[in-house]
Amino acid sequence: MKRVEGGVAAPQGYRAAGVRGGIQQTAGKKDCALVASSVAASVAGVFTTNVVKAAPVLWDMEVCARGRAQAVFLNSGNANACTGPQGVRDVKDTAIHVGRALQTPPELVCIASTGVIGVPLPMDAVRRGVEAAVQALSETGGRDAAEAVMTTDRAPKDGAFEVALSSGPVRIGGMVKGAGMLSPQMATMLCVITTDAQIKPHLLDKMLHKAVAKSFNCISVDNDMSTNDSVLFFANGQAGIDELDDGSEDFRLLLEALEALCEDLAQLLVRGGEGATKFVTIQVVGAPSDDAALRVARSVAHSQLCKTAFAGQDPNWGRVACAAGYAGVPFEPGALSIWLGGVQVMANGKGAVYREEDAAAVMRQPEFTVRISLGSGPGKTDFWTSDLSHEYVSINADYRS
Amino acid sequence: MKRVEGGVAAPQGYRAAGVRGGIQQTAGKKDCALVASSVAASVAGVFTTNVVKAAPVLWDMEVCARGRAQAVFLNSGNANACTGPQGVRDVKDTAIHVGRALQTPPELVCIASTGVIGVPLPMDAVRRGVEAAVQALSETGGRDAAEAVMTTDRAPKDGAFEVALSSGPVRIGGMVKGAGMLSPQMATMLCVITTDAQIKPHLLDKMLHKAVAKSFNCISVDNDMSTNDSVLFFANGQAGIDELDDGSEDFRLLLEALEALCEDLAQLLVRGGEGATKFVTIQVVGAPSDDAALRVARSVAHSQLCKTAFAGQDPNWGRVACAAGYAGVPFEPGALSIWLGGVQVMANGKGAVYREEDAAAVMRQPEFTVRISLGSGPGKTDFWTSDLSHEYVSINADYRS
Repeated sequence: MKRVEGGVAAPQGYRAAGVRGGIQQTAGKKDCALVASSVAASVAGVFTTNVVKAAPVLWDMEVCARGRAQAVFLNSGNANACTGPQGVRDVKDTAIHVGRALQTPPELVCIASTGVIGVPLPMDAVRRGVEAAVQALSETGGRDAAEAVMTTDRAPKDGAFEVALSSGPVRIGGMVKGAGMLSPQMATMLCVITTDAQIKPHLLDKMLHKAVAKSFNCISVDNDMSTNDSVLFFANGQAGIDELDDGSEDFRLLLEALEALCEDLAQLLVRGGEGATKFVTIQVVGAPSDDAALRVARSVAHSQLCKTAFAGQDPNWGRVACAAGYAGVPFEPGALSIWLGGVQVMANGKGAVYREEDAAAVMRQPEFTVRISLGSGPGKTDFWTSDLSHEYVSINADYRS
Repeated sequence: MKRVEGGVAAPQGYRAAGVRGGIQQTAGKKDCALVASSVAASVAGVFTTNVVKAAPVLWDMEVCARGRAQAVFLNSGNANACTGPQGVRDVKDTAIHVGRALQTPPELVCIASTGVIGVPLPMDAVRRGVEAAVQALSETGGRDAAEAVMTTDRAPKDGAFEVALSSGPVRIGGMVKGAGMLSPQMATMLCVITTDAQIKPHLLDKMLHKAVAKSFNCISVDNDMSTNDSVLFFANGQAGIDELDDGSEDFRLLLEALEALCEDLAQLLVRGGEGATKFVTIQVVGAPSDDAALRVARSVAHSQLCKTAFAGQDPNWGRVACAAGYAGVPFEPGALSIWLGGVQVMANGKGAVYREEDAAAVMRQPEFTVRISLGSGPGKTDFWTSDLSHEYVSINADYRS
């Protein structure tokens, strides 16, 4: 497995584009992206579990249920969420428009939106974006597409790997956007992943759910799950190698590459999180199960008091012990131990003997690990989060207009 | 029902004191409180559900299981949490010391602590505090006791009511401390409630759980549930009126007074929340059940994005809709409506027609209501929360030492 250039357009048979349609206010900002396969591909998706789902999410869920798609059109600047029947019509019109330009049925076109909630899509701008994006499609357009989906993101986020399967090499590429789980008045984590491997939709879906569970479900910037969160995964078979079977060694290798890509993209989200000054790995071991470990990690990562302690570079392990304790996971408090980097600060339920300056030195680093051992089983997880800084409050308390 | 002075010492047969033992660093700061009844009383408690429970919590749970107590000794400045077997011994020693001074068995003495986690109790200071508090006990000592339990609290918080029962008047008084659910390195919401009504422990317990569910369980400053949270309720029968029967009109009247007192104290906690610049009532109606309404309200009240929008005075209803949607409560998104004060901003799943300046004017007030109608049943709740301000981050990111 090696890293390659090209992002979502790195695998065979994909082209991408990022252009300006005129949806975002900032002059010149690209706001429309298109990723297209040369042939209809298998497709799978993972979507927000929010009851309030944006219109494009509902559309894509239907596309993914059928398992076939050829392209995805994305816009930033408007989430098309809480827009009622008009929003549903606008998604369909956009898909028809894209399908016509690409000479493919609208049912094979996915749609993803991110931006302001509750305002109807400016369809003139969307149509201009579709025209321009189709014209601009290119095998080197991956980075442009990653730029076009940015809202409060500080940099484009993409990546790609090549992996040698038994019958030849395949590639897997991806791009993602998101800075808060829900940015200032904005919705969304959007992610598009492409591969030129050949694989049936239900296996693609299985693979994607596994990878998301260990990547995008293991990060937190601010614990807000948007109306638009979507991860789409396309497999077009254009590498010209054998179709992957469930449980085969090739299946395992591609899953490994997918997991590596998703972990990279997920970590980019945290590093680029709104106001983030720290990148913190919460490592939980000794939990009753992996799921229990995840719940403990999430509890610590979501705690405002832990996150402000990270920002303040304060080795305040009592807050970590406390957040672990209210995760809803049973464990023996007398077995709880905590390390900040290599410094053990809590041992078997009470304060360890350590030098305060050593613990403080760990917290002054831009990246560090908080390790929590529950001593109550084999379950473990890694989880990634940022701190809660003054800048986060500034970004999110700013008045919209 | 009328308000009276005196706090926890307002009912007949109670005395209280707040003194300095020397546990808190600040010179002159009172840090030990004692509330004592002239006779053994019925007692009930509600405690943190955190797996990591402080030593005094474990002690009080045993006292309340027996249902009888005569006094509670509280200290601020040290939580006696994550202190291992030493912490357990220190609680027992404190109870023995208090019991000896009050000539009552230690098994009738409750203990509550708040402050730094993971540091053993300075027992010399605690003993000094016990001696001084016993000396200072007085029928007018309620406010001193409320002051002694303060940590980052900006003001003492107490209250009392007199209510006319069929056989005569009774009083109910209370005090509370807490500024974050877990303050800078500090643990805890502590609350002591006293009444001179006569009531059996199991009924007192029933009454307390009902009142807590509608008050302390309906507030949020920062969603962190401490290792020390405790609410203790004493009933000593010294008003000299008939014992209360379950389901009687008198039982209902006392419950009503208890609920009013708990709601007052809970709202004082939110108003005094760390860095709070807004007092926001989240009102949910039309939920499948009251419990579902509570979950939706809590989801909105805990959302960092909603709380920063409150701080920023931004009528960003998309964030409210989004947080309602991920509460784990099923509802029909097309029936969702939201009001900021009297301004409807969302109607039946999409943006309402309103003037932005009207909504902004509501948010500029120090107190306002966010009303959320799910259109999916009869369930409703009121919930109280504060905003997430720069000051909150400053308070909680400060280095401890």
